[in-house]
Amino acid sequence: MLFQVEMDVNIPLDFDPEEAAAIKAREKAYSQGLQESGKWRHIWRVAGQYSNLSIFDVESSEELHGILMGLPLYPFMTMRVTALCRHPSSVREDDS
Amino acid sequence: MLFQVEMDVNIPLDFDPEEAAAIKAREKAYSQGLQESGKWRHIWRVAGQYSNLSIFDVESSEELHGILMGLPLYPFMTMRVTALCRHPSSVREDDS
Amino acid sequence: MLFQVEMDVNIPLDFDPEEAAAIKAREKAYSQGLQESGKWRHIWRVAGQYSNLSIFDVESSEELHGILMGLPLYPFMTMRVTALCRHPSSVREDDS
Amino acid sequence: MLFQVEMDVNIPLDFDPEEAAAIKAREKAYSQGLQESGKWRHIWRVAGQYSNLSIFDVESSEELHGILMGLPLYPFMTMRVTALCRHPSSVREDDS
Amino acid sequence: MLFQVEMDVNIPLDFDPEEAAAIKAREKAYSQGLQESGKWRHIWRVAGQYSNLSIFDVESSEELHGILMGLPLYPFMTMRVTALCRHPSSVREDDS
Amino acid sequence: MLFQVEMDVNIPLDFDPEEAAAIKAREKAYSQGLQESGKWRHIWRVAGQYSNLSIFDVESSEELHGILMGLPLYPFMTMRVTALCRHPSSVREDDS
Amino acid sequence: MLFQVEMDVNIPLDFDPEEAAAIKAREKAYSQGLQESGKWRHIWRVAGQYSNLSIFDVESSEELHGILMGLPLYPFMTMRVTALCRHPSSVREDDS
Amino acid sequence: MLFQVEMDVNIPLDFDPEEAAAIKAREKAYSQGLQESGKWRHIWRVAGQYSNLSIFDVESSEELHGILMGLPLYPFMTMRVTALCRHPSSVREDDS
Amino acid sequence: MLFQVEMDVNIPLDFDPEEAAAIKAREKAYSQGLQESGKWRHIWRVAGQYSNLSIFDVESSEELHGILMGLPLYPFMTMRVTALCRHPSSVREDDS
Amino acid sequence: MLFQVEMDVNIPLDFDPEEAAAIKAREKAYSQGLQESGKWRHIWRVAGQYSNLSIFDVESSEELHGILMGLPLYPFMTMRVTALCRHPSSVREDDS
Repeated sequence: MLFQVEMDVNIPLDFDPEEAAAIKAREKAYSQGLQESGKWRHIWRVAGQYSNLSIFDVESSEELHGILMGLPLYPFMTMRVTALCRHPSSVREDDS
Repeated sequence: MLFQVEMDVNIPLDFDPEEAAAIKAREKAYSQGLQESGKWRHIWRVAGQYSNLSIFDVESSEELHGILMGLPLYPFMTMRVTALCRHPSSVREDDS
Repeated sequence: MLFQVEMDVNIPLDFDPEEAAAIKAREKAYSQGLQESGKWRHIWRVAGQYSNLSIFDVESSEELHGILMGLPLYPFMTMRVTALCRHPSSVREDDS
Repeated sequence: MLFQVEMDVNIPLDFDPEEAAAIKAREKAYSQGLQESGKWRHIWRVAGQYSNLSIFDVESSEELHGILMGLPLYPFMTMRVTALCRHPSSVREDDS
Repeated sequence: MLFQVEMDVNIPLDFDPEEAAAIKAREKAYSQGLQESGKWRHIWRVAGQYSNLSIFDVESSEELHGILMGLPLYPFMTMRVTALCRHPSSVREDDS
Repeated sequence: MLFQVEMDVNIPLDFDPEEAAAIKAREKAYSQGLQESGKWRHIWRVAGQYSNLSIFDVESSEELHGILMGLPLYPFMTMRVTALCRHPSSVREDDS
Repeated sequence: MLFQVEMDVNIPLDFDPEEAAAIKAREKAYSQGLQESGKWRHIWRVAGQYSNLSIFDVESSEELHGILMGLPLYPFMTMRVTALCRHPSSVREDDS
Repeated sequence: MLFQVEMDVNIPLDFDPEEAAAIKAREKAYSQGLQESGKWRHIWRVAGQYSNLSIFDVESSEELHGILMGLPLYPFMTMRVTALCRHPSSVREDDS
Repeated sequence: MLFQVEMDVNIPLDFDPEEAAAIKAREKAYSQGLQESGKWRHIWRVAGQYSNLSIFDVESSEELHGILMGLPLYPFMTMRVTALCRHPSSVREDDS
Repeated sequence: MLFQVEMDVNIPLDFDPEEAAAIKAREKAYSQGLQESGKWRHIWRVAGQYSNLSIFDVESSEELHGILMGLPLYPFMTMRVTALCRHPSSVREDDS
């Protein structure tokens, strides 16, 4: 099942830069593991923003929730979640 | 260059149903031609809405604008356009 | 899988009252069939509004989308869809 | 009488984690006591958010207010309260 | 139980003035009957607007919903409903 | 002259509880004095919120402003002020 | 007593131009009469908009409401009303 | 040239009261100097808010910007600026 | 003096296409005349929208207002006007 | 390719003034270098705000993103990015 998730990241100005760098490194590894497993299908940067637009392919809302709660940057993020379906005009069977 | 485009369709209640069906058929053919050419990379339906979430891969804003103005349903649509970039955490070279 | 769906109904002032009554009767039958099948788990009226708050229990976003598109009142409705999960504090196993 | 209550939780980044854990444990016990008494009829997690959607069945607005003010997490919450009624299409007598 | 209800009235420019006058006369009679029964405790005009601010004292959300649906001007109105409680600083026992 | 005033109170999480209690006690005394004088005609709690809905009966905007600026909790409040009039459908001469 | 009133005018595209011109002429005469009486202290055009920003000096909200309801363009207007006071830094006694 | 400027002031709760008083005194002197020069034509208090509504009469946007940046309270303010014109219905030549 | 003006155009679906084409032709000629005179410094299309972003260089708000009111498409437009100044970091003397 | 970028700057009240001055000096140098290279085509100050309106001319969204992320004031900024196209009514070939 597909979900669009938009994530805005906001790290406070006075947050320790080393700790921030460590969290971002964990975030990258976490995201790449999920991309390789196929759960996190797409991730794009929004131009000019510390935000991403992602597409997840999961079994259920519970699985999505678990993945998002596990994001190392989750405490710094604001999220918008939208449930998606296959579009009747899509030419791709595997892009449902 | 990638753009996210969200399109909401709103056909008036009293619009002629046959004309609406003809416009939708032209819209589907137009969309599928662009999907096959690779310009319209993804199209998903937003659950519960007469709306789609699409990803376009075009040469420039001008090309995007021309494609969107050519949509048979354009006069019935509201659009939100967002410029995207490759994300530094993406594992896919071809998903920039 | 659970979804919250909020539906606002807006029938134009000059819409034929008999046709409106017929559509509402079909809407009621359609809703009750889905309630009896367990797909439409709850439906409440929002006090003072021609709106409802509903909980659906479906297999997927696609199934939800199909159900909502089939609503006889769909052309008169504005919808907000929210994906839900079981809450870790819930005492009810069957209310996930 | 039924009320929908949407609760968003926002604990500051620098709040003591042990104190937060203790408050959350009290919150869970408080919620479960009210669920068992039938006052807090439903609680669902909103996918991707530290938010819940709840349905309360109380005698009056005063009772609802007292329950919500007593939430251990109340100082960290933003609330939206909506009064609900039985829906004329509902098939359930006990879901008024 | 007390509810604040804010009502905005919007009669289309081309609505028949005689019919509008008849509806407004019925609205006034309906409102005054409910004021005399004590259900509609207060009604004030919002300065500069075709809107009112009202306080209702009813048994339940269902009773409120029934009263509001019965308003002759209901099809022309937008409503905002807010559940109220006695305030702990109030000096009036009868203003709960 | 009547004004509706909606007041939302927001005391920071780390504000000294004793000082907060002292300010609230002064607020209550201040409010009750004005209620007894007839200036602060009504005060209701908004269900689920640390907010009130109040009706003031004052000589002028200046008098209202002076009263509101004198609220011990004013530095913690957000306000919305709306000028009201007697409603032509009101049955109460003394509720103008 | 002073009030700021912002008025946006929106005449439908298909409204009869002669009737519109007649209403605007009555509006101008009505406004100028009130300006000369001192009730309508200031009127400015908002650049680029069919909107004005006005300052009224009236006895009460009731008087303001009566004046605004009497505007020939009132059925085409959206209004925002804000109660004003003398500012403690003002150097003008007569500009309260 | 005329501009409407709405200024909301928000001084943090923990800001030093003596320093705040000194800034407010400088603000008052600065404002009164500009009022006397005719640049700051009107200043009114918004009832119930720590906000003002002002009318400036300046040579250009640059002059306005310079004046506003010079406000001692500027770092504590949120501003909304609207360009105004003479209204065709105005009876005052000097109130352009 | 510089102003940013954002213009959204919305021609009703059932508006006569020939009349629309004639108005658009007049709009283009009007715009190009003002561009050549230097009053309308820049005009860009917003990608995916029937909207433009324009920069005007005029003597005053009055001149701007007159120009905008003269737009043949004005009755179909929604506008947002923002006063601009030279930026202290700008390297261009002639771009103030 | 052209983009409109609106940047609002918000430096906390308690930020070290010398450090702020140093960042602003770096920002100015950075901006002027990009202006001279032609990437940052225009920059204007929004009257009354610590905000600018800028036009960028870049190869791609990626290039824009890189430029914006490099702004010394980026951590203090909120951005809105809009993709622009040549307007069909523009008289300037070089202003696409």
